[in-house]
Amino acid sequence: MSEHWLLGKRVPRPDAIPKVTGEAVYTDDITFPGMLYGAVVRSPYACASIRSVDTSRAEQLPGVRAILTPTNSSLFSTEILYAGQKVAALAATDPHTAQEAASLIQVEYQRHRAVFDPIRAMSRDAPVVRPSRSQEFNNVCSHQRKERGDLETGFAQADIIVENTYRVGIAHQAYMEPHACVARFDVSGKLTVWTSIQGQFNVRASLASMLGMPVHDVRVIAPEIGGAFGGKTSLIMEPIAVVLAKITGAPVKIVMSRQEEFIDAHPGPGCIIHVKTAARQDGTLTAEWAEIIYDTGAAPGAPTGNFDRTRGLYRIPNFRYDIYSVYTHKLIPGAYRAPGALELTFAFESQIDHLAGELGQDPIEFRLKNAVDEGDLTVDGKVYPTIGLRESLHQAREQIKAVEHKPHRGIGVACGKWMNAIGASGVILTLNEDGSVNLTSGAVDLTGVNTVLAQIVAEELSISLDQIHVQTRDTDVAPYAALSGGSRTTYGMSLATQNAVRQLKKDLFEFASQHMPVSPEAFTVADGKVVPRDGSHTGIPIRELARIAMYSARGPLTVTGSASDPSWLADSYIFITQVAEVEVDPDTGEITVLRVSSFQDVGFALNPMLVEGQIEGGIVQGLGWGYLEGLVFDKGVVLNENLTEYKIPTALDAPELVPVLIEIPSADGPYGIKGVGEPSMVVTPAVLANAIHDATGIRLTETPLVQDDLSTRQGPLGNM
Amino acid sequence: MSEHWLLGKRVPRPDAIPKVTGEAVYTDDITFPGMLYGAVVRSPYACASIRSVDTSRAEQLPGVRAILTPTNSSLFSTEILYAGQKVAALAATDPHTAQEAASLIQVEYQRHRAVFDPIRAMSRDAPVVRPSRSQEFNNVCSHQRKERGDLETGFAQADIIVENTYRVGIAHQAYMEPHACVARFDVSGKLTVWTSIQGQFNVRASLASMLGMPVHDVRVIAPEIGGAFGGKTSLIMEPIAVVLAKITGAPVKIVMSRQEEFIDAHPGPGCIIHVKTAARQDGTLTAEWAEIIYDTGAAPGAPTGNFDRTRGLYRIPNFRYDIYSVYTHKLIPGAYRAPGALELTFAFESQIDHLAGELGQDPIEFRLKNAVDEGDLTVDGKVYPTIGLRESLHQAREQIKAVEHKPHRGIGVACGKWMNAIGASGVILTLNEDGSVNLTSGAVDLTGVNTVLAQIVAEELSISLDQIHVQTRDTDVAPYAALSGGSRTTYGMSLATQNAVRQLKKDLFEFASQHMPVSPEAFTVADGKVVPRDGSHTGIPIRELARIAMYSARGPLTVTGSASDPSWLADSYIFITQVAEVEVDPDTGEITVLRVSSFQDVGFALNPMLVEGQIEGGIVQGLGWGYLEGLVFDKGVVLNENLTEYKIPTALDAPELVPVLIEIPSADGPYGIKGVGEPSMVVTPAVLANAIHDATGIRLTETPLVQDDLSTRQGPLGNM
Repeated sequence: MSEHWLLGKRVPRPDAIPKVTGEAVYTDDITFPGMLYGAVVRSPYACASIRSVDTSRAEQLPGVRAILTPTNSSLFSTEILYAGQKVAALAATDPHTAQEAASLIQVEYQRHRAVFDPIRAMSRDAPVVRPSRSQEFNNVCSHQRKERGDLETGFAQADIIVENTYRVGIAHQAYMEPHACVARFDVSGKLTVWTSIQGQFNVRASLASMLGMPVHDVRVIAPEIGGAFGGKTSLIMEPIAVVLAKITGAPVKIVMSRQEEFIDAHPGPGCIIHVKTAARQDGTLTAEWAEIIYDTGAAPGAPTGNFDRTRGLYRIPNFRYDIYSVYTHKLIPGAYRAPGALELTFAFESQIDHLAGELGQDPIEFRLKNAVDEGDLTVDGKVYPTIGLRESLHQAREQIKAVEHKPHRGIGVACGKWMNAIGASGVILTLNEDGSVNLTSGAVDLTGVNTVLAQIVAEELSISLDQIHVQTRDTDVAPYAALSGGSRTTYGMSLATQNAVRQLKKDLFEFASQHMPVSPEAFTVADGKVVPRDGSHTGIPIRELARIAMYSARGPLTVTGSASDPSWLADSYIFITQVAEVEVDPDTGEITVLRVSSFQDVGFALNPMLVEGQIEGGIVQGLGWGYLEGLVFDKGVVLNENLTEYKIPTALDAPELVPVLIEIPSADGPYGIKGVGEPSMVVTPAVLANAIHDATGIRLTETPLVQDDLSTRQGPLGNM
Repeated sequence: MSEHWLLGKRVPRPDAIPKVTGEAVYTDDITFPGMLYGAVVRSPYACASIRSVDTSRAEQLPGVRAILTPTNSSLFSTEILYAGQKVAALAATDPHTAQEAASLIQVEYQRHRAVFDPIRAMSRDAPVVRPSRSQEFNNVCSHQRKERGDLETGFAQADIIVENTYRVGIAHQAYMEPHACVARFDVSGKLTVWTSIQGQFNVRASLASMLGMPVHDVRVIAPEIGGAFGGKTSLIMEPIAVVLAKITGAPVKIVMSRQEEFIDAHPGPGCIIHVKTAARQDGTLTAEWAEIIYDTGAAPGAPTGNFDRTRGLYRIPNFRYDIYSVYTHKLIPGAYRAPGALELTFAFESQIDHLAGELGQDPIEFRLKNAVDEGDLTVDGKVYPTIGLRESLHQAREQIKAVEHKPHRGIGVACGKWMNAIGASGVILTLNEDGSVNLTSGAVDLTGVNTVLAQIVAEELSISLDQIHVQTRDTDVAPYAALSGGSRTTYGMSLATQNAVRQLKKDLFEFASQHMPVSPEAFTVADGKVVPRDGSHTGIPIRELARIAMYSARGPLTVTGSASDPSWLADSYIFITQVAEVEVDPDTGEITVLRVSSFQDVGFALNPMLVEGQIEGGIVQGLGWGYLEGLVFDKGVVLNENLTEYKIPTALDAPELVPVLIEIPSADGPYGIKGVGEPSMVVTPAVLANAIHDATGIRLTETPLVQDDLSTRQGPLGNM
């Protein structure tokens, strides 16, 4: 049925083999003779001033080569704003000496009063973490408002109003490979940095700017990466490694420990959502009001800019949303897969379920009644094109119908929305003399993008997949690529590849017209040959044209393709409905997630196997944040700073996963695709909470959705 | 005076710094855990059949991992055609074990009658090395004839005929770094080969063909190279390393010893030239006849195809040249810097000098009288464009006039010709977001080409040189590049770079016209900005446009440029006149070369410092082949197989070198350049012989021009 012969096929990832065999090279595998190892000294206190740093004992330790402190390096500050903040760093000849030296550095602190709760931090008498951007509240990092219609009228029209406060805990991306980097200067002064990162070119730009060098004097190499999920988008240890390498004249490696990851990386933010949703008895939504308070810790970092990107599922004529980001004396959050979306979806989709329940309406019918359609407006007032929300709800309804109802079991449903980015993208295509093709990309392959780019080249040239070699290469040689995030990578890189391969075909057709009596526009490709569409000639194999070109004045056929966008986001609206089936033990409250089905509009699945993999992975991470994960603090100090106490779902914890792909083509995406890296995670805590409510009658409003809350309740543990 | 601001300037090579500091990475620096080391067993006999190969003792040596013999590998033959031929190979855990194991392999030989002299080999009763392609002679590998006019008439018109036989010995390129390679398969079956080679893509093609793989499954990386001079154009140890790596599943390194280099690399060929040249009393050449016999050893390899490329300096109405390549039981020659040219120039320019002397004419005036001009025909009948032969003779004449004549000193003059190739060439240019540029090439930089390409980019974009980073990268990512040889590299790669940077300017101008009310054609670049030619706008810095493009739908600016040629050779005719001043000790015959001046038409010197370096190096190598170097054989076995007994000129042996650049632009070369890598070597043995004759009255006709021939003579040691 498809117009494509290879796109849409379940092509395995070639990079799976080196990964499972252990051959793949990660940053920590990079070593050099004479390499030094860095270690960092961190503050045990959340709020303090440093009185003194005594490095004398560390300096005397044999093997210590350089020590950076607030006194000699602008990388460190004497003002401590969170527990785990870097105070000093050093380089030594081996990791153990480095750790020992770090333990010998004595720091004298003057402690100050701290504030950890963002609502508490907003009060006028709270300690000031950083100057507030609000006249009204302390510690406001940012505030924005989204509104439409008249809230008072909207609430006045309602028959029922549901008001709740939701709290989402801080969740770590818990990638398998911690942050790691190696920095090395060559004799010419050029810097090379190997780092586990989502975007090589960001690192290049930041380091070049820090060092005052042209970007081409900084080479960034991203070896294989062991997970990221938004947590490897910005520099973390690289500047320290670079300065230590500069001072010592030796390569310097820094690998973060798992403990360091938990106390000083950039996890998904904590968030408090106070929300009031109103509807008429017939189920028509009339108004919604919310205050959303992100805990941004000691510095800006909470992803507050994605409200329109993730909300706007229902026609609500009157709304006002105030989104605050508030400083506290805690670690600085960052992006975690669909940043900002999961926490808002948890709150707003719990509200919808709550309202439907109060009105005695089926949660799916209630959603269908209010769901946005083509022509409706987004929160920011853009007009929706054809979208897949209703289709996903319809398919979810069919799924639910087939579920057998049993005691202590519940079924939940929830919807979500996301939009993917595009981002600066570029590829180089080289047609080799035997007709095989090399594709060079600068984008880190987190999700299988390189596999998909190979499919596109093979599809467009009508040559077999084993003739294509796709590689991510370093910043010296690859075209610029924005970071692999925002569900942009396959979208943007496929656009660039489509442009490149079409340029290559254009060049081939022009060259072929010198060898066949056919004008360039009259050619197409078939079976690896350039042939006239009208069949007037048997055609010439691409490999033959490649060889001829190489020995003609034309020269070797190498082309480039680029894509980017002025607005970062693509006009692709991704809607998802998920259905969760859970069982809750009525005595212990233990939650067993039996099955999660996800009905997601993916535009077009270039490689359904990889798309399903993204959806499955997203659901499992969503479950983790939903009912297992969350940093636990004591006076700003993370207590569960290891994977024994911070539990993430393992394969054994995963329920049956049913990814269902809905394909409503995007308007401007290559081949109609939409981003799929992030959206699947958005809905899961909400659908889990709704399923638990269905099973127990208890509405949990705080993640992780802990079983204790269920077992201690006195209410009846009902079923649907 | 120049229309260029940076081209034609003496820009130093940035790669000098890593080379002199030892930071540069050569193939032998590449190591892997678990890497094996290869060693080769070689025949001590020049002609034999192998009766048996006993590997049992070697197999028992701990650390030996694989042994290849004629029995289990098609890489080896049971028929031995030269001493030093590879008989078997093995891989072991360290180089010493590998060598020891090789010494434990026992080979039983059945020896046969051999032939070493090519003239002897042509006789009907000589042992057959390989089947002859001639009805008339044995062992003829190839024969070609060049003729014009009527030889009989030409000789009949002459007043004087000079007839001599010249012999040129076999000379090794004597690069500092011997051949080295590392072969490694990854788990996916992809092969990576690091090798010291002039052309990465040749190696890729050969190995892919040998293994039956698409070329993109073979990655060839040429690390820094320690000299080549034509001696690293083809595979030598790579197939053995690859097969051993395949069998053992481990990376395998093979580094040739200096002895192996002398007995089984591909040196410049031995050649015998019997030539008869005729002129009228007034100095007009009337006819020339020659038989040229190349000693191609045990297989085709002698560079017999370059006759027209190096001859055709004089108007000779009647000529016939027969060029034979003849098999002998000796090692197989290959290319050595201007392959085929030095030996022919030695013979034919000695003839010219001899004739001039016999006629009592000044050697320069004699040459000027007969020199070809624009409109004359080449040997192959092409029409010369504007050429620099006369100009180089004029400048040489001025130089000679200034030389003071002293006893026992002589001045020699000789002319030469060469033509450079173009070859498939490609580059990628990436405009970074700060306006700096990365250029990626697949061409091995032997001569400073990367420095020159940076100059071209900087010149064309009017940005400073430190904003350009040029790099040679491997075959996976770089566009195809023919091997760095044939004086093609700067020529072809500059063409490709010129094409790329002009495409980049075109793209920039199109993009700029969206931001300035100016049509794309009306732009130029100045001071790093895109500005309208008419000054109607102050312009926009290139770095600004680069940044804007990256965040517009245009995307990052990366372009490619290619060049190639159907005929391999460019239409650029390079003429050189050299002048040598020597002193010959009348008692010992010791030759002291005082000064060599070279007047060479270089078209346009993109970087005069590098061009002069090429000329100086060529002269010194020409002197080496001329009066120091030559393999000495005993029954086909090389006796002087080390740098103690095979003497190459050191810095202390080098005379004063005076490179004079003549700039007659080439018609189709970029910026009018002509190739300069090879031509300077062409003339030197001839000019040395002519200078020795001038000093001593003795005409030496055999290289190396040995002092013994001079000291034992009874003739008067005269001066000019």
